[in-house]
Amino acid sequence: MRNYKKRDFPVAKVRRFLEVGPIVLVSSYYKGEHNIMTMGWHTVMEFSPSLVGCMITAANHSFELIKKSKECVINIPTVDMIDTIVGIGNCSGTDVDKFSEFDLTATPATQVSAPMIKECYANFECKVVDTSLLNKYNFFILEVVKAHVATSPRYPRTVHYRGDGIFMVSGEHINKRKLFKPEML
Amino acid sequence: MRNYKKRDFPVAKVRRFLEVGPIVLVSSYYKGEHNIMTMGWHTVMEFSPSLVGCMITAANHSFELIKKSKECVINIPTVDMIDTIVGIGNCSGTDVDKFSEFDLTATPATQVSAPMIKECYANFECKVVDTSLLNKYNFFILEVVKAHVATSPRYPRTVHYRGDGIFMVSGEHINKRKLFKPEML
Repeated sequence: MRNYKKRDFPVAKVRRFLEVGPIVLVSSYYKGEHNIMTMGWHTVMEFSPSLVGCMITAANHSFELIKKSKECVINIPTVDMIDTIVGIGNCSGTDVDKFSEFDLTATPATQVSAPMIKECYANFECKVVDTSLLNKYNFFILEVVKAHVATSPRYPRTVHYRGDGIFMVSGEHINKRKLFKPEML
Repeated sequence: MRNYKKRDFPVAKVRRFLEVGPIVLVSSYYKGEHNIMTMGWHTVMEFSPSLVGCMITAANHSFELIKKSKECVINIPTVDMIDTIVGIGNCSGTDVDKFSEFDLTATPATQVSAPMIKECYANFECKVVDTSLLNKYNFFILEVVKAHVATSPRYPRTVHYRGDGIFMVSGEHINKRKLFKPEML
C-alpha cells in the first residue's frame, strides 16, 4: 500500500474525487469503538457547504457508530488496496477490529473523533448534518468539514463497484475545458 | 455514435451501471416540451424498489419538467458521445431543442412520457417517488420502473466527471468474486 504525502484541500472541491463514483471506506468512532465500512452508494449534493449524501444499511455496525457520534471520515482507497476493500466489506465490525485485521493505520482527524485511514489517497472529515431520510432510506447527509488529499498523483486510480464481485478501475482522462462556457466550469 | 441493440434488463440490477458513477443524460417531457440535461450527482439508494437519488439544480430547465411531470429517463451515454455530453450541459433547453441540436433520436418509453435517447447504451425509465428533500436540496428520489440495456458490450466505456472540464473514462475490470461471502454478492 502507498504512503501518500497529503495536503489540505478545499472542501468545496471534493467533487473532483467523489463525483466520479469510487468505492470509499468510511471510518467511524463512538465511545471507544471504531470501525470501517466499504461504501458505494453516495453522491455529492452541494459545493458549499460541501454536502455528500450516502446510504448506509442499518444492519451495518458502522450505522450505529455514525448515527450516535454524528461523525465519520470518508477515505478514498486506490486499486492497490482492492483486496482490503473487498475484505472490509465482507466482515463485520462486531467480530473484528478492521484496522488491525487489515493492517491499516488510524491517524487522528482534526475536526471529528473518527480516525482517518492513512493508507488512503484522500480523507474527508464529515459531520452528519441531516437525518431526515434516515428512518425511511438509511440515508445520511454529511458535510465535509476538512479534506486531506495526496499531493501526487493528480488523479488516483480508484475502484468502482458494479455488483457481483466485479470492479471497474478508473481509466484515462480527457480534458474538454475548451467546450465549456466559463460559468459552467 | 453507436446504434445499440437493447434488451429489457431487471430494474433491481441497474446498480451495475449507476453505482460506478457515470455522467448520465436525463430526458424529460411535460405538456409538449421535452429536454435533456447532463447529470453527475446521483446515487443508487435501494435495489427493490429500484431507487435512485439525484440532485437537479432548480435553475435548470429540466427541473420544472421533471417536477411537474414526475417522470424522466436516465440515459447512459458512452465516451464516443463526450462532445454531446459537454454540449448538452453547456446550453439551456429554454433556448434550444437539444434532441435536434445534438442530432439525438427520441424514442418512446413504455412507462413514462419522457423520451429515451436511442444513441445511449442504457435507458432507465423513472418515476419521481419522493420529493421531501426537493425544497431544501433540489434532491429527487426516483424509482426505475423499466430498464433497457444494450446487449453488447457487457460493460460500457462511460465518462465520469471531475469538474473543471476534466472527464475520467472507465477503465479495465477486475473480478474479485472469490473473495466475497456468498451472501455479499
